[in-house]
Amino acid sequence: MALKTKEQYIESLRKLNLKVYMFGELIENPVDHPMIRPSLNSVAMTYELAKQPEHEELMTSTSNLNGEQINRFTHIHQSTDDLRKKVKMQRLMGQKTAACFQRCVGLDAANAVYSTTYEIDKAYGTNYHENFKKYWDYIQKEDLVVDGAMTDPKGDRGLSPSQQADPDLYLRVVERRPDGIVVRGAKAHQTGMVNSHEVIVMPTISMRPEDKDWAVSFAVPTDTDGIFMIYGRQSCDTRKLEEGADIDLGNKNFGGHETLVIFDDVFVPNDRIFLNGETDFAGMLVERFAGYHRQSYGGCKVGVGDVLIGAAALAADYNGAGKASHVKDKLIEMTHLNETLYCCGMACSSEGCPTASGNYQIDLLLANVCKQNVTRYPYEIARLAEDLAGGLMVTMPSEKDLKDPKIGPYIEKYLKGVDGVSTENRMRVLRLIENITLGTAAVGYRTESMHGAGSPQAQRIMISRQGNISAKKELAKEIAGIKEEQNK
Amino acid sequence: MALKTKEQYIESLRKLNLKVYMFGELIENPVDHPMIRPSLNSVAMTYELAKQPEHEELMTSTSNLNGEQINRFTHIHQSTDDLRKKVKMQRLMGQKTAACFQRCVGLDAANAVYSTTYEIDKAYGTNYHENFKKYWDYIQKEDLVVDGAMTDPKGDRGLSPSQQADPDLYLRVVERRPDGIVVRGAKAHQTGMVNSHEVIVMPTISMRPEDKDWAVSFAVPTDTDGIFMIYGRQSCDTRKLEEGADIDLGNKNFGGHETLVIFDDVFVPNDRIFLNGETDFAGMLVERFAGYHRQSYGGCKVGVGDVLIGAAALAADYNGAGKASHVKDKLIEMTHLNETLYCCGMACSSEGCPTASGNYQIDLLLANVCKQNVTRYPYEIARLAEDLAGGLMVTMPSEKDLKDPKIGPYIEKYLKGVDGVSTENRMRVLRLIENITLGTAAVGYRTESMHGAGSPQAQRIMISRQGNISAKKELAKEIAGIKEEQNK
Amino acid sequence: MALKTKEQYIESLRKLNLKVYMFGELIENPVDHPMIRPSLNSVAMTYELAKQPEHEELMTSTSNLNGEQINRFTHIHQSTDDLRKKVKMQRLMGQKTAACFQRCVGLDAANAVYSTTYEIDKAYGTNYHENFKKYWDYIQKEDLVVDGAMTDPKGDRGLSPSQQADPDLYLRVVERRPDGIVVRGAKAHQTGMVNSHEVIVMPTISMRPEDKDWAVSFAVPTDTDGIFMIYGRQSCDTRKLEEGADIDLGNKNFGGHETLVIFDDVFVPNDRIFLNGETDFAGMLVERFAGYHRQSYGGCKVGVGDVLIGAAALAADYNGAGKASHVKDKLIEMTHLNETLYCCGMACSSEGCPTASGNYQIDLLLANVCKQNVTRYPYEIARLAEDLAGGLMVTMPSEKDLKDPKIGPYIEKYLKGVDGVSTENRMRVLRLIENITLGTAAVGYRTESMHGAGSPQAQRIMISRQGNISAKKELAKEIAGIKEEQNK
Amino acid sequence: MALKTKEQYIESLRKLNLKVYMFGELIENPVDHPMIRPSLNSVAMTYELAKQPEHEELMTSTSNLNGEQINRFTHIHQSTDDLRKKVKMQRLMGQKTAACFQRCVGLDAANAVYSTTYEIDKAYGTNYHENFKKYWDYIQKEDLVVDGAMTDPKGDRGLSPSQQADPDLYLRVVERRPDGIVVRGAKAHQTGMVNSHEVIVMPTISMRPEDKDWAVSFAVPTDTDGIFMIYGRQSCDTRKLEEGADIDLGNKNFGGHETLVIFDDVFVPNDRIFLNGETDFAGMLVERFAGYHRQSYGGCKVGVGDVLIGAAALAADYNGAGKASHVKDKLIEMTHLNETLYCCGMACSSEGCPTASGNYQIDLLLANVCKQNVTRYPYEIARLAEDLAGGLMVTMPSEKDLKDPKIGPYIEKYLKGVDGVSTENRMRVLRLIENITLGTAAVGYRTESMHGAGSPQAQRIMISRQGNISAKKELAKEIAGIKEEQNK
Repeated sequence: MALKTKEQYIESLRKLNLKVYMFGELIENPVDHPMIRPSLNSVAMTYELAKQPEHEELMTSTSNLNGEQINRFTHIHQSTDDLRKKVKMQRLMGQKTAACFQRCVGLDAANAVYSTTYEIDKAYGTNYHENFKKYWDYIQKEDLVVDGAMTDPKGDRGLSPSQQADPDLYLRVVERRPDGIVVRGAKAHQTGMVNSHEVIVMPTISMRPEDKDWAVSFAVPTDTDGIFMIYGRQSCDTRKLEEGADIDLGNKNFGGHETLVIFDDVFVPNDRIFLNGETDFAGMLVERFAGYHRQSYGGCKVGVGDVLIGAAALAADYNGAGKASHVKDKLIEMTHLNETLYCCGMACSSEGCPTASGNYQIDLLLANVCKQNVTRYPYEIARLAEDLAGGLMVTMPSEKDLKDPKIGPYIEKYLKGVDGVSTENRMRVLRLIENITLGTAAVGYRTESMHGAGSPQAQRIMISRQGNISAKKELAKEIAGIKEEQNK
Repeated sequence: MALKTKEQYIESLRKLNLKVYMFGELIENPVDHPMIRPSLNSVAMTYELAKQPEHEELMTSTSNLNGEQINRFTHIHQSTDDLRKKVKMQRLMGQKTAACFQRCVGLDAANAVYSTTYEIDKAYGTNYHENFKKYWDYIQKEDLVVDGAMTDPKGDRGLSPSQQADPDLYLRVVERRPDGIVVRGAKAHQTGMVNSHEVIVMPTISMRPEDKDWAVSFAVPTDTDGIFMIYGRQSCDTRKLEEGADIDLGNKNFGGHETLVIFDDVFVPNDRIFLNGETDFAGMLVERFAGYHRQSYGGCKVGVGDVLIGAAALAADYNGAGKASHVKDKLIEMTHLNETLYCCGMACSSEGCPTASGNYQIDLLLANVCKQNVTRYPYEIARLAEDLAGGLMVTMPSEKDLKDPKIGPYIEKYLKGVDGVSTENRMRVLRLIENITLGTAAVGYRTESMHGAGSPQAQRIMISRQGNISAKKELAKEIAGIKEEQNK
Repeated sequence: MALKTKEQYIESLRKLNLKVYMFGELIENPVDHPMIRPSLNSVAMTYELAKQPEHEELMTSTSNLNGEQINRFTHIHQSTDDLRKKVKMQRLMGQKTAACFQRCVGLDAANAVYSTTYEIDKAYGTNYHENFKKYWDYIQKEDLVVDGAMTDPKGDRGLSPSQQADPDLYLRVVERRPDGIVVRGAKAHQTGMVNSHEVIVMPTISMRPEDKDWAVSFAVPTDTDGIFMIYGRQSCDTRKLEEGADIDLGNKNFGGHETLVIFDDVFVPNDRIFLNGETDFAGMLVERFAGYHRQSYGGCKVGVGDVLIGAAALAADYNGAGKASHVKDKLIEMTHLNETLYCCGMACSSEGCPTASGNYQIDLLLANVCKQNVTRYPYEIARLAEDLAGGLMVTMPSEKDLKDPKIGPYIEKYLKGVDGVSTENRMRVLRLIENITLGTAAVGYRTESMHGAGSPQAQRIMISRQGNISAKKELAKEIAGIKEEQNK
Repeated sequence: MALKTKEQYIESLRKLNLKVYMFGELIENPVDHPMIRPSLNSVAMTYELAKQPEHEELMTSTSNLNGEQINRFTHIHQSTDDLRKKVKMQRLMGQKTAACFQRCVGLDAANAVYSTTYEIDKAYGTNYHENFKKYWDYIQKEDLVVDGAMTDPKGDRGLSPSQQADPDLYLRVVERRPDGIVVRGAKAHQTGMVNSHEVIVMPTISMRPEDKDWAVSFAVPTDTDGIFMIYGRQSCDTRKLEEGADIDLGNKNFGGHETLVIFDDVFVPNDRIFLNGETDFAGMLVERFAGYHRQSYGGCKVGVGDVLIGAAALAADYNGAGKASHVKDKLIEMTHLNETLYCCGMACSSEGCPTASGNYQIDLLLANVCKQNVTRYPYEIARLAEDLAGGLMVTMPSEKDLKDPKIGPYIEKYLKGVDGVSTENRMRVLRLIENITLGTAAVGYRTESMHGAGSPQAQRIMISRQGNISAKKELAKEIAGIKEEQNK
């Protein structure tokens, strides 16, 4: 089967029977809902670009499972070159959408499950790896979008899954049947779930023997009985509902979304199970998924950063400040920070290595370093963009005012910048900056940069574990001439 | 006349005949408009606190013009102690509203005009100082809110007022009459204009002789013929229009606003003019107003910061992470940065000195240092708050979902944090953080921190001018034993 | 008795019978030792400036103990104005010496002991406050330099004084006699001890009842039997021993020093004891001393910063880069950071308040914020200075090369900068920057900024204690509409 | 010919007839001079490790010129894998020496000259590439150390070479002869020159037609007639001259050095010339050398950082603070920053591409981003190391005191840290930190990080040129829906 076109993708979503709630109501037609559609468009761009010859090398690959040309968003990485191309594809997508395009999470889940199931099978004689390969072969051939669901609500952070007052605060197996299992719980912050055909569920933390029922991984269609989603509010979300909204949106066409997904006693057949009680492998799965996903941010956020830098440069041009030395210096700083993130994304890729199963994994230390920087630099890039934008970004009238026959001409007159640039275009670029720094896209560019793939402290713990301080101490002893035995 | 009560203030606003446009329509009743009212409530708090005995010392003072007890927001500073109390009052107001309370700009304008008019009169034999004193005596006795209007639209930043393609891009005198002048132009980013009785207009930059018509300062009632306002859009502004909105607002009661104010051939009588063509004093007026206003940010933003720090601490408590060492350390860092801003606000106050007219002015170098830090630290405090809040802040369902009988119980169940805290309260505190970091209050806490009272580069220029590098070079020469004459 | 002249001060030091060791040898004549003398010169400047009419207001004050004019370095602060003048005096001294002038530590000790002894006496009926007043009256009248000795070696940081393997690792009372006590231990990092007539010893941490013998404070002459000092090595210290050294020193005349001071069974008479076993007051004494000393750094380091900024500006002028926009911007940044420190120094002073004993104490929270910034900004100012200096600072030949008849002319030729500036002067200013950023003065400008008056973590603990997070939580609850009772 | 042993290398240096001046005197025997020898040891380590089987893959390669196994420090890069291995080799060398090992500059010069000469020959029909290949084949076979000399003294930075008052302030051709050229001038900051057999000279900036005589590149032996060197002073340099110095050196065995090298009418034969008047290629040569050298810092400084992190961790262990959460967090931060530099080094390598001549070049934008970070992070890592070290690092007695029979026991007693660690070892690790942050190695770790391979502003200019802001503007226009033509 061939790669889907963008149109085929959208058509395929219409056939799903999703249960999506928003503002207390069930959405009849998520595909055409004005608040959801921009996020769908972002995913659709992964199909559109894959069909463009100039992007074919980045956007597609050849499957190791079936030898066919597939969308790279469904690829099992076969080399460090694949890992590098993944990041480049993500930067490209960020540039084209200035939003979260949601399809990485399934890609990262697939690669983590692929290698972990191989190792579980070796240890326990289970059949998870074959399950997964068969499943993923289907995904590749159908060119589907898969959500990766990891984050449980977690309740009291100080307590383990089995210690929580409500055992469902981590998703768990509530019934074991000959043909499969029944699960209950929820996954929070589910990126792109409404635009996905399938969902891979994974545990969210390392587990101990007593957490057996919580150590579960599987895949199901997103419209499986018992699954429903509650759409997350974003800053400025309802602007998309305003009649004729365009300029005020900043980014009319693209967006992202997150949902709270409830698994209300969902049945999972045996051949869709990838982990079921092997608690000692939960940590490996989490660590690998997180590693891949921390790499991802060294691509996608860099692409959005490219758009934001361009927008800030335009805003300065439009008010006549483009040649001021401090403006140029701020654009350099933004570029420098953005490319530093890219360096981290590329480095953890080029330093990747094969797993036992044969697919390639990123360098874990460097991927965590990558993400840690992502929790900082987009904020500083955004701050500098707000500096260059000027206060007008948050004090200017609405587009309804601009288009009003009575008031509009005053706005045209008084918000005019340099010669040759329309007031409308000046407003457009400021609204784009607002969108990325304060509006719907800020959810992706700021908060997701902070918490996506794990909050900053999670990376610090990994950096501590991977940083090998004891080897560094030995280096220092050698140089300092410290010879006696230490008990440290 | 006595200090107005909060109710008297609101009543007095109803009597104004303001022309305010929003979304292309004239607002009939701004006082009760749900999008405007929270900003009015913030100003009203300046009246409410002034009546509370425990805040009397900070919130009121004795007028040097008429000896009566007045609201400190109308006080002409008589000492460095007054300057320090001003900052403390602003911090208190920030704590009580978590928003921009708008009344500082008139206070800062008044003190700048007070001293500058004195010096113009000395130089040119004009009568501006008496005009202003009479005017301000009236303001104090009536306890009015005065907007200070400085920022012109500016068009092409590379051109001076008289060089602009459209001469109205800086507000100017278009007609001189025996009884007064007629002015045309606009002022952008007008904080609190809709909640003000009066407006003091000032030029926005230093001027050269050819800019005579643009060197103008005066005061008029906000409902003067020819004045109209276009209300600025803010991030998440229309949430306030949602039926029954409460939780999702984060801060239901308080807010701020900015408007674009058009002066469409407005007449100003002679006794309300404070500058009219004396171009060499435009720079002094700007510098002094900016100086006072840069001091102000060392108070108000610190108060909002207090609320944000508290909210972040609560969010961490509510999800059970409050005792983690990294959480405590982030709260310390936020406190440290916030108090550094306060230090700057207090230092430029305590180092203030009297002007020729007798009122007190802040230390100009330190006030610019204060504001420069304000363009940085609130962003970092906000970043840390977003870190502590967790991703739920931007992915959680709406309050309509929470209150929905079908979906609500699932949210109650799955978004529960630690024992003893309701899911609703957890959502409330996260929405408050969202409000300050991404929502309507982010306009005040972030963008206004960046651009209010002048963008960062404006402070850097002042720091360069006031920093006295040449004296520092002499110190270095003395220490280094450099004795020969330098031509640098 | 009158204020001492600089010469009288030096003469008075000659009369002391100090035991100072350096490089394993007892120094015969510390006053004229080329490695020590520059630090003496720094202290001497406190005498010299006090005699100059233009500095009299800052450098002297009127004693509250005896009504005489005294050097401000011996003043018991009587107002917030005194606290502010203290900081200004310190900035002036930093500008004049570009080094640590050592006399603050005694001043800060005196003010802390003054108020704490008052409160101990109230609680326990002791006579410490009278002891101290009599003692300090003598210091003021004789215009003596007093070292303040707090930091014990501490051994294993994880253990309290009484838990240490060696009980002497915190200074303690080893014998109690009718006429006094005998103490044993050491104090590390003793700034200016060799240039001091007297030393006030204080405990270094809060203590528990079992630490009674370690809760001791007293004063003795620096040449008391049993006291000896081991001089600390500094970066580049022996350059001062090089024949004819001048240019290579960067700062020929001024410096600072620290010593390890051993108290090898030293007798202290009863009237010189200020704390003796009242463990519950050890913490107060530490906290107050640290508070004053953390304020101090908002003055002295700012003064050194002034010199460093001037030197960096000169270096850029000398190589023809002085007008480059990035150079000017870096000078602005350095100034901004330096003045932020000054703001903190001034703010904790202006917000000071009287103690029960009547002397004035700084605002504790703001003083800790001040010092915390001092652990950061001098490093960044130094980094920027190194940027502006260029690599020549660390690769250029010695002054012996410059003065060599054969090689010198080549250096003259090839290290010439702009017209009108001699190569020698270019080298002088670069050596000054080296001195402050890498050399002997870097010990003061960097490491002392980091650890003096307590390491950064000590301030963070105080900021946490003083920051009143629980009040901030209440502010947030009020704004967010959180009404139910929390158990947090 | 085989790879040289460390001993053969040292022997080969003895045969050189170098003219090296220090403190105004000609050094008789540089190889055994105590101030120079540690820097020689660092270079010697490049020979020693190349002979160790476990490091063979990183330290050696196969020559593209002659097919033999060569030291990687003489390799012409044939792939991105070679570029990555270069960085890894540099990190290893940094870990083993904690100093600048000096041999990179020749490697980077060789690769830049290799590709640039190829392109000059194509454009002008010259024979430079063959000259260089023959020359470099000799270097590889003899396994020689080559210095790369770029930085001219530059005089007044505002003037071009031909505009300088003294034309020799940029090295230039003063005579053209049939068999070669005669050059005059100087090169500043020459790293490792005294330990090098040969030197490649390159121009230091882009040139214009009128700068023809200054556009010159060539190679000569370091002991050629007319060449002499003046040894640069470093912080703490003379500690190496102290009798029996060991502990106080921090790093007894390794170091680096820079010299000012004078070319006093030096003859260069035709077959050693690589550029001679082709001014339009000067910029390419500079840019490529700088690019490679900016990559290098992503390796060597990371290796030194590893040692410094280890030392800081040891220092904390030794005083009992190793388990404090703030200590662990600072070690994480240091690791994070250090690995970010490594990411940049690896990324500009993995993204490299072949030049027209066939050798591989780094990604220019990312290499500049790498170096820009190197001008920042080592300073912050050093600051954190000083934090963890504690003040003792700069106040503790000399090793002569420690070894003194009378004073030593007191130091042993009072500077004791945790049980099981000797006071000597505690001092050793603190002196190592001092060495890297303030002492001789700080010249490499701080100042060279700042200015080596170009000062920060040079990277910013390159980032601006390579950052492609105009493409980013187009991305923003596409997203914002800006359709009309702009004249920007």
